[in-house]
Amino acid sequence: MNAVYLDHNATTPVADVVLEAMLPYLRQHYGNAASRQTFGTLALRAIDQAREQVAQAVGVRPVQVIFTSGGTEANNLFVAGAAACLRPSQIGVSAIEHPCIAKPAAALARQGWTCRRIAVDRDGCLDREDLEAALSHQTGIVSVMLANNETGTLQPVARAAERARSQGTVTHTDAVQALGKVPLDFGKLGVDAMTLSAHKIYGPKGAGALIVDKRLQLRPMLLGGGHERGMRSGTLNVPAIVGFGAACELAVARLADMSRRMRALRDRLEAGLQELGAVIFGARAERLPNTTYFALHGIEGETLVVEMDRAGYAVASGAACSSASPEPSATLVAMGVDAELARGAVRVSLGDSTTAAEVEGFLGSLQRTAQRLRGLAAVTA
Amino acid sequence: MNAVYLDHNATTPVADVVLEAMLPYLRQHYGNAASRQTFGTLALRAIDQAREQVAQAVGVRPVQVIFTSGGTEANNLFVAGAAACLRPSQIGVSAIEHPCIAKPAAALARQGWTCRRIAVDRDGCLDREDLEAALSHQTGIVSVMLANNETGTLQPVARAAERARSQGTVTHTDAVQALGKVPLDFGKLGVDAMTLSAHKIYGPKGAGALIVDKRLQLRPMLLGGGHERGMRSGTLNVPAIVGFGAACELAVARLADMSRRMRALRDRLEAGLQELGAVIFGARAERLPNTTYFALHGIEGETLVVEMDRAGYAVASGAACSSASPEPSATLVAMGVDAELARGAVRVSLGDSTTAAEVEGFLGSLQRTAQRLRGLAAVTA
Repeated sequence: MNAVYLDHNATTPVADVVLEAMLPYLRQHYGNAASRQTFGTLALRAIDQAREQVAQAVGVRPVQVIFTSGGTEANNLFVAGAAACLRPSQIGVSAIEHPCIAKPAAALARQGWTCRRIAVDRDGCLDREDLEAALSHQTGIVSVMLANNETGTLQPVARAAERARSQGTVTHTDAVQALGKVPLDFGKLGVDAMTLSAHKIYGPKGAGALIVDKRLQLRPMLLGGGHERGMRSGTLNVPAIVGFGAACELAVARLADMSRRMRALRDRLEAGLQELGAVIFGARAERLPNTTYFALHGIEGETLVVEMDRAGYAVASGAACSSASPEPSATLVAMGVDAELARGAVRVSLGDSTTAAEVEGFLGSLQRTAQRLRGLAAVTA
Repeated sequence: MNAVYLDHNATTPVADVVLEAMLPYLRQHYGNAASRQTFGTLALRAIDQAREQVAQAVGVRPVQVIFTSGGTEANNLFVAGAAACLRPSQIGVSAIEHPCIAKPAAALARQGWTCRRIAVDRDGCLDREDLEAALSHQTGIVSVMLANNETGTLQPVARAAERARSQGTVTHTDAVQALGKVPLDFGKLGVDAMTLSAHKIYGPKGAGALIVDKRLQLRPMLLGGGHERGMRSGTLNVPAIVGFGAACELAVARLADMSRRMRALRDRLEAGLQELGAVIFGARAERLPNTTYFALHGIEGETLVVEMDRAGYAVASGAACSSASPEPSATLVAMGVDAELARGAVRVSLGDSTTAAEVEGFLGSLQRTAQRLRGLAAVTA
């Protein structure tokens, strides 16, 4: 495939150094990390190292890392697991959370909880006043993502967490999109728990983590052999966890460089998009350095994704994980974006291999595609 | 590592053909199967093929396969998910279930359920009379494993399921240890759901499945992007699922041959063990062809595992997944085995690479180790 991949917020290729770290655990070191023979202890040692790598990347101790099968499981574990240890009250989540926070939060209604969506402003940033309004009611849990997967807008998590914790609220942030793109420090954020995922940072699919404060009370979701100190049973996915660790180490090592390169390419991309008359969502907000979310008036995002794919550029319309659903992006709706414009939304997310030539190529191809689609529209109008 | 691996019920090496199938999805085909561009559709096509391979291995249609992160998740999904759709009553599980059935079943007490353990006989087979006694109370769910992970005893699942379903009870079997070792047909078993795992059949860690009857009502556990028809959200672990599919195909293709070879080696192993005076648990029961669970009087299983590991043989004491816990095997306790003898339990589980020479080597080494340990015991006594 010679296509240019510009959908790194959906998933990333596994970095060579990550795959190299994984391969021995897909080949000769295949032991079960719970087994008490040499095969098992070799696997366990690899898990221990990965746990340290993940912990170091976000400034925590290894014991604070609970490995899961990915971000969705970690988010669900937090929401269901923290709620199970609290008296039912209100759970506050930002209006732009990923469905794997929004849906479990809404599902807590079955246990007597109320789910309160906290508004965002037109730029996609958490509305401080609405957070205050929400917290004026008894609130057991607050979860606000660190960076939105669609717009890339960074959220004031540290401030929100400080405010919420001051009244005893348990706080969480989904940092899946932030890891590897902006500096990340669990202690500085001041949350009780944080979700990470390997496959968004050039690690493999199948590994994620819930980082927890030692004071957090959590009921496990998966019960069984008692792995992860009883917080997540199930045979540890050794190769994927080893890859997760290696990816964390890589992410930290190249963060400054990657961030600078991404930002320069992204700025060039957005300048070109503006020349084409594109609307860039969240443009005024502080955002991830690699993410651009835009629309061209009168062109459906779905159509543009298909046409750009034919032209050799892989991008996304709406959130990748729910690309199969036809509704307009909940994030854009929450930002008050007009429904028609929202239907035009296309996300470009740059990655480590993205070059200036690819960005120029994308812009040229987009211009030709847009002209053609508008020409077709004019003919059929 | 030149050690001889005889712990295939804990986990298996990834078969070469399986790893070959996976590698392209760890390298160039890294798309998110939910993405609507070429990278995504390539990943989705691979998932579709794996779904067919898994379905074919157990005689179901692809739509009946819900991919999970492994057996533990599939078992938890079934127990919690089926219970959530039923009025609380009794859940019956065999007394020798893996903790990832036993614990979620016990946890249903919080939702008003009663967990009823169904007894097994001295050979480790489900006690028919106790099943009847259990079913004389209103029973919403029954789960009986197809093959026990420790003894390898095969359970009368088809008969139990027929009996339970006749009164409207939802039935499930954990077939994780059976797949690839004995013929497996979902329809013939007559259960409503069945759990499978990839890493027990020379596939990768990180993939499993819950096979469901279309009439089964199930509430998902992981909520989010709506993957797996809403039954299991979370980015599909493409390489692991591809490996799972390839492993299923391999398992079916070599089942007859493997089964015959394992049985011959196992019989030789057990003849040798009996010469050493070993007690073989469940010896009179119909068992998996690869599994031997034994004890030598007066020798701790834990000690034997460590000593045999030093001698170059990897085996297990008790269930691998809970090897970290010091309690005697719950399976042996349920079989009425004397506690002291149970503490001597060691499991040998043969695999595709096991040779007659390895079995002879193991027996010789075991004899020397046992003599030495008994000598030490005599000296210190």
